[in-house]
Amino acid sequence: MNAHRRLPHQLGVAELSAAFAHGELTARQATEAYLARIDSQDAKVNSYLHVTAHAALDAATASDARRAAGKALGPLDGIPIALKDNIDVAGVPTTAGIAVRRGRLAHSDAFVVQRLKRAGVVILGKLNMHEAALGATNANEAYGVCHNPHRHGFTPGGSSGGSGAAVAAGLCAAALGTDTLGSVRIPAAYCGVAGFKPTYGLVSTRGTVPLSWTLDHVGPLARKVEDLGLLLDAMAGFDSECAESRARTTGDTRYAGPYSQRLDGLVIGRVVGLEAVPLQPGVIAAFDRAIDTLRSLGATIIDVRFDGYDFTPLRLQALLTIEAEAAVVHADDLAADPDGFSETFRTFVGWGARQPAHKLAAAYRAVADVQLIARRALAQAPVLALPTAPHEAFAFADPVPHVQADLTSLANMARIPSATVPMGRGDTGLPVGLQLLAGEFQDALVMRVAAAYEAASASYVAPD
Amino acid sequence: MNAHRRLPHQLGVAELSAAFAHGELTARQATEAYLARIDSQDAKVNSYLHVTAHAALDAATASDARRAAGKALGPLDGIPIALKDNIDVAGVPTTAGIAVRRGRLAHSDAFVVQRLKRAGVVILGKLNMHEAALGATNANEAYGVCHNPHRHGFTPGGSSGGSGAAVAAGLCAAALGTDTLGSVRIPAAYCGVAGFKPTYGLVSTRGTVPLSWTLDHVGPLARKVEDLGLLLDAMAGFDSECAESRARTTGDTRYAGPYSQRLDGLVIGRVVGLEAVPLQPGVIAAFDRAIDTLRSLGATIIDVRFDGYDFTPLRLQALLTIEAEAAVVHADDLAADPDGFSETFRTFVGWGARQPAHKLAAAYRAVADVQLIARRALAQAPVLALPTAPHEAFAFADPVPHVQADLTSLANMARIPSATVPMGRGDTGLPVGLQLLAGEFQDALVMRVAAAYEAASASYVAPD
Repeated sequence: MNAHRRLPHQLGVAELSAAFAHGELTARQATEAYLARIDSQDAKVNSYLHVTAHAALDAATASDARRAAGKALGPLDGIPIALKDNIDVAGVPTTAGIAVRRGRLAHSDAFVVQRLKRAGVVILGKLNMHEAALGATNANEAYGVCHNPHRHGFTPGGSSGGSGAAVAAGLCAAALGTDTLGSVRIPAAYCGVAGFKPTYGLVSTRGTVPLSWTLDHVGPLARKVEDLGLLLDAMAGFDSECAESRARTTGDTRYAGPYSQRLDGLVIGRVVGLEAVPLQPGVIAAFDRAIDTLRSLGATIIDVRFDGYDFTPLRLQALLTIEAEAAVVHADDLAADPDGFSETFRTFVGWGARQPAHKLAAAYRAVADVQLIARRALAQAPVLALPTAPHEAFAFADPVPHVQADLTSLANMARIPSATVPMGRGDTGLPVGLQLLAGEFQDALVMRVAAAYEAASASYVAPD
Repeated sequence: MNAHRRLPHQLGVAELSAAFAHGELTARQATEAYLARIDSQDAKVNSYLHVTAHAALDAATASDARRAAGKALGPLDGIPIALKDNIDVAGVPTTAGIAVRRGRLAHSDAFVVQRLKRAGVVILGKLNMHEAALGATNANEAYGVCHNPHRHGFTPGGSSGGSGAAVAAGLCAAALGTDTLGSVRIPAAYCGVAGFKPTYGLVSTRGTVPLSWTLDHVGPLARKVEDLGLLLDAMAGFDSECAESRARTTGDTRYAGPYSQRLDGLVIGRVVGLEAVPLQPGVIAAFDRAIDTLRSLGATIIDVRFDGYDFTPLRLQALLTIEAEAAVVHADDLAADPDGFSETFRTFVGWGARQPAHKLAAAYRAVADVQLIARRALAQAPVLALPTAPHEAFAFADPVPHVQADLTSLANMARIPSATVPMGRGDTGLPVGLQLLAGEFQDALVMRVAAAYEAASASYVAPD
């Protein structure tokens, strides 16, 4: 299919880039098309909290001028993307989904925004999210519910709910989110798009409003895996001003394609022993089909278990560290204007903040030990596969399942890369995701397996 | 000087190794000489808590047999060393200097002990230490005071006081200690020997009794820098069973010599802005001479400051993390037999354990940010020099100076390598140490500068 036969919002990052390069489309045209679509379509989704139309058009015009002068910056030059609203863009508000931060302007760009601007991206605006990134429904009391574009009244997931929804609904070519226990991958899975949480420290979190500086990651969401790779290539790198930055070198690994479509010789561990996490039948069936697909690509499938990993207790230990850190991050605002937060947030964070220090120290220890659990599993197979979430998206009217992040949070604690790619539909026809894991700094391997699976499977399907 | 003209206890690791290789001495003879010396000399020092004479003689005999068969294992084969008593040797008690642990046998070897045994070392025994490694005087209520071999009644420093004292007094060829805020380097400086704290995660701490799993490091003490390098070569390496292990590869860096005796082209930062830490005049004078020596070796000296580093507040933040973690480590023993700990220990740890979680989370954050402070300083000069301790060793009868670890603890929080080498004598004639720092995983660079300085300066001087 030729790129120009489709509308701009149907093209991914790589496809748009090719269309720009071939003169079939300008960055200005693509940006105008996205802005028009946001105008006409986002009222029912509510994925954008702030549209930076003027700056976007200026950036697109500048991109086109560079290209006309033969000075295009690379594959991201002129690509219209959007950012979760806890990522700073200078001169634009960063609410982090919290009422008290309404209208609070960022003074400078986040590290990843600096990187992406230098690569020429066009920033369309800032996206809805669960309050303070603590929660995975995106039922935001202050800024309004963000809906799943596949089914109104259903959660897009969270906390990067706006990112998942905007990418799925074709309201940006790709988006950034943040992921503390699954907050990039859960909305990607619920909304039927691809998402990536890099190795801890590969992408600097400087200039994002932290939820937990020890578990937070910045990651991309896109409709195609190769688009994730193009974004990660620009985002990854050592940041001497970020204590968590562990990227040793820049540019020695490429995350973008072209990828092989075969997985011959690769051993993939199917994660078993998930009995503690109730999986919907449709998720189990989709996962079984995904494993068959991976096998058909030449991979050898073996069963692997996370020995010593207790899902619920470990999620609760991680939650305590998050609550204590969130209390530090938002201390001034909580003291000055407690009503600028939801009662739910204040209750959680207040409880965590008051626990005795020895309990928090033990929680940090338990979380760190998940690195060992992951290493032991990865010693059996270099890539592990499991569902991204135990279920499809649910209705806002329904109770929130406690196990939402049980399958994703291991990768945050273990600090390992984790991708989600669409693996078809679940029981009621909503998207479900396949999760792929590998060892620390094996991000390119995860990307490669995700791309091969994507090419052989259903992949992204636009909402009706 | 030929090695065989000197007594075994006057030889360092490399010198003993050469003497073995040339057939001038056997491991058995060296071991017997050390054991005899421990018998005759250690009563007044009290550096050994446990002498494993039988196992040592067996190991020495086995080493000699290997050598006779042409199968010597390398430069450490047959070298008699000793270990701080918080490092596990299978079948030998590990007290960690705590009364409640008296006689408690270790079930297996610590990671570093496995490594060193595989390299052929002979373990003479286990060394005195400050209770639980929390403190730097080695005035141990349960196991007795360990004295500085340079002046009886004076502290050898701590918490690895027995390690510093035994190396200085010639009661082992080298020793291992652990270092949480300076516990290898402070006793090395006070006792006039060399000591090394590696990059965090380069040497696994598995099988040591933790004080703080986030700040603990295992490191060597020896009379010569090249001996530190030989030990580090054997100790460093990835440990898949240690959450803190960050060594990516084994054997791709050598820490042992031969080292260049020149430092031409190297920029060394003299750390200034230490006004908050009262330095003894003799330490200042010795440090000025050391800087002159480094300059005479060809290094360019510039002034560098740790911008944003507040010595006392940061030491107190680190102390809170340590107390909370120590409460977790010793929880069972504290519950079962509180009188098995000193009142001082219980008071400190109990206070830390009861602080609210948000305070501990903030302390972890402040400690992590020291990585940034160090990176900014190291961006100006790849190697930094400062005194190891602000003063000489003090009498047990005198009050303990609070600033003991103020100059060493930065390297623990920043996770960077730090060496101490003797830089002559202070006001009252006791040894003082020069501290050298470099960036993460630049351990070999620190070793190289320390060796060049050592070769050009007074170096180790045996106690009278």
